Amino acid sequence: MNDDELRARFSRPAFEAAVDAASASLADGGVPIGSALERGGRLLATGHNQRVQQGDPTAHGEIDCLRQAGRIGSYAGTILHTTLAPCAMCAGAIVQFGITDVVVGESRTFPGELNWLRGRGVTVLVLDDDRCAQLMTQFQERFPHVWAEDIGTLPDES
Amino acid sequence: MNDDELRARFSRPAFEAAVDAASASLADGGVPIGSALERGGRLLATGHNQRVQQGDPTAHGEIDCLRQAGRIGSYAGTILHTTLAPCAMCAGAIVQFGITDVVVGESRTFPGELNWLRGRGVTVLVLDDDRCAQLMTQFQERFPHVWAEDIGTLPDES
Repeated sequence: MNDDELRARFSRPAFEAAVDAASASLADGGVPIGSALERGGRLLATGHNQRVQQGDPTAHGEIDCLRQAGRIGSYAGTILHTTLAPCAMCAGAIVQFGITDVVVGESRTFPGELNWLRGRGVTVLVLDDDRCAQLMTQFQERFPHVWAEDIGTLPDES
Repeated sequence: MNDDELRARFSRPAFEAAVDAASASLADGGVPIGSALERGGRLLATGHNQRVQQGDPTAHGEIDCLRQAGRIGSYAGTILHTTLAPCAMCAGAIVQFGITDVVVGESRTFPGELNWLRGRGVTVLVLDDDRCAQLMTQFQERFPHVWAEDIGTLPDES
């Protein structure tokens, strides 16, 4: 769908489920990024970053959500909701799985790969949601080292 | 490192570990793509596609390998070896985690995102290894539906 269609049709409950997942992750001392996959009004799965909780560096919010959804076959008609602009890995997953519509909470605290996604034909709606930005700001201030680890910007200490 | 340096210095044992992981996955009825992460002559982790074995669509070979490696901090100095050209998700993970050197078994059976990787500053060495291509050809002929699922090209049946 195009930008206006996505703005009109995206799922507010699915987005709220993503925000709730991000909040739950922060409460556990984890990276507060949550995601939710929806199709036709049905919530297929939610997930959140599991780097701290599971010690899994690949479990960004979007990846964890797609993992929770399992083998759903075609992703046609799905909308992925995520609280933060997707990084290169998560943007790549979106493109590879053929997810064409993405709702992003905010891109103030991390720019992500929004331009690359759009260049690959994905419609991206950025809500600029204050709650999402506050979750990330709290986390980045409290745990700057974990945040640097999560986006691959740790200094080389080898 | 540049192309010549990577060709001279990549780890043959790590590449063989990736091929072994791919073969083991095929023996289990899974997608035969394996990976190995190495640094300074030390094998940090291996992994293989787990879509069939774990029902996890995000567990491509490279992602499984990075998951097995766990939270290693900076990826500086690591070389990721993988039997097949990385898809968009796995290429994105490589870029996001700051892995700058990748050894690819083959890109005949799937082109992957090699040009994109190179454009993002990653040195990519393609070995054009017959065994890797044969593993993929066997799998694609026996399980075309699972292969289409793995690279997001299933038809929409909703």
